[in-house]
Amino acid sequence: MSAQADHVPGFVPTLAIIGVGLIGGSFALALRQAGAVGRVLGVGRRAQTLQQAQARGIIDEVVSLSQAAARADLILLATPVGTFGDIFRALKPSLSTHARITDGGSTKANVVAAARAHLGNRIGQFVPAHPIAGSHESGPEAAFADLYRGRDVVVCPLPENSEADVTYVQEAWARCGAKLVRLGVQEHDAVMASVSHFPHWLASLYVEQVSKGAHSQASLQLAGAGFGDFSRIAQGSVEMWRDIFVANRSAMLEQIDAFSELLETARAALQNDDQLWLDQTLRHAAQVRRAWGRGEFRRGMDNENP
Amino acid sequence: MSAQADHVPGFVPTLAIIGVGLIGGSFALALRQAGAVGRVLGVGRRAQTLQQAQARGIIDEVVSLSQAAARADLILLATPVGTFGDIFRALKPSLSTHARITDGGSTKANVVAAARAHLGNRIGQFVPAHPIAGSHESGPEAAFADLYRGRDVVVCPLPENSEADVTYVQEAWARCGAKLVRLGVQEHDAVMASVSHFPHWLASLYVEQVSKGAHSQASLQLAGAGFGDFSRIAQGSVEMWRDIFVANRSAMLEQIDAFSELLETARAALQNDDQLWLDQTLRHAAQVRRAWGRGEFRRGMDNENP
Repeated sequence: MSAQADHVPGFVPTLAIIGVGLIGGSFALALRQAGAVGRVLGVGRRAQTLQQAQARGIIDEVVSLSQAAARADLILLATPVGTFGDIFRALKPSLSTHARITDGGSTKANVVAAARAHLGNRIGQFVPAHPIAGSHESGPEAAFADLYRGRDVVVCPLPENSEADVTYVQEAWARCGAKLVRLGVQEHDAVMASVSHFPHWLASLYVEQVSKGAHSQASLQLAGAGFGDFSRIAQGSVEMWRDIFVANRSAMLEQIDAFSELLETARAALQNDDQLWLDQTLRHAAQVRRAWGRGEFRRGMDNENP
Repeated sequence: MSAQADHVPGFVPTLAIIGVGLIGGSFALALRQAGAVGRVLGVGRRAQTLQQAQARGIIDEVVSLSQAAARADLILLATPVGTFGDIFRALKPSLSTHARITDGGSTKANVVAAARAHLGNRIGQFVPAHPIAGSHESGPEAAFADLYRGRDVVVCPLPENSEADVTYVQEAWARCGAKLVRLGVQEHDAVMASVSHFPHWLASLYVEQVSKGAHSQASLQLAGAGFGDFSRIAQGSVEMWRDIFVANRSAMLEQIDAFSELLETARAALQNDDQLWLDQTLRHAAQVRRAWGRGEFRRGMDNENP
């Protein structure tokens, strides 16, 4: 047992992290740094990763899912969201009645559906979250205590959650240094589609179009800094982004359909020399983007749990 | 008459720049720095700008369009492309038979159409060009001799140009330090639409969609670095980009139509869970973008006129 656990049971006496990589490992390190955690249990599929996490002091002990369910006060799911269904199912039978579960998944409607399907009448113990933080690196070696400091964590309370459950989970994220934002599940997925998933989609398709165009060599030869900025996100992990697009299909389809319509409207304006429409649209977009760059949309974003 | 003109008539004994701002002024300063120019004549609409250009040593003398046409060995059109028709018409009557004309316009098919309409049988004296260089600043105060150093200048020879005309104009740009790329007029406009104009179009429409979305406040609040990169170019000058879109309408419509089709194909792949298509497309786009970032498409781009 760690020295901390002997003397300071803390806000989270026993934490279990399912997945001991960047997201899970950083959560544990952040709560340790804040003096907010007692003992940390780790669950994972690969022995080597668990050993690394233990060697780095991220976890105190390797346990099974059912042990984590029985012993932990707080459980963080920090594996790919495709694995959540199996994890919820394995946790349920031995889940203690006071345990709270949260997660680090970047989509929420599909995660909540998996939780409802597999947690059943224990669904109220799950408070979905999405920390908007990451790194190009992954694994326990990449984990660090300040990953969440100053970053947004979206919490998506369910109707079945008690206010005490929500407050507890929010407080845990806040003690990691995160700024909390509450959104509904559908709203979260629509927002993420809008400002994260859909631009990746557009950037990838745009690069594909350039590369398949009649003059692709000359085009890529002459492409400059604007091209570079616009297409930078198309370099992201193929598997991760494919999974996100599929996981957030419904919100993505809404973005795609709205954009197809806007593209058609804009095409007509260009075709018909509707300079007023072009002017107004370009001006409004430029104003919004400049205001965003000045941080104007960040106002009032101070941590809800300071 | 400048000291240079007395002793070193140079490669361009008399240069005329129509428009003495960033593009024209930098061209004159670059050729002066290279010792490649004798006397520089300046044409402009505003007395104050011409005085600034003269004070900065960009031009030696202020002249009319007909004087420029009669006296210059090389004439650079460096005003907004919408003014080119009137300028070609004013130049033609007194245009000396040995004068060559080039330009700094960012679209070419419309410029060539204006030249054909107004230069008539003198069209062979015009060698269209597009220096891919710029600055956030404008006017003679912003001009500097190294603006074109190491930058691409696309030259789009016409069937009516003699090889001597093309070589002369290319050599002038090369003496500014530019790297020369030869493209056909249509090819130039297609390439510029693909990697410069169309991404601006997409970025502006994308920001407009975010700003008009149901959750725009939360979206802009949670938007991160990827959003910032992708949408940065939407901040450009509204008037300039509107003019470019309209000037390059035909190539823009081709880009829009191809993208609408690709967006529809991609939508079907997402809807039908065609993960193979998604994987292949995302992977190819990521590979192309990474190769571009490594400069692989810049190979063989050394100056054609070293």
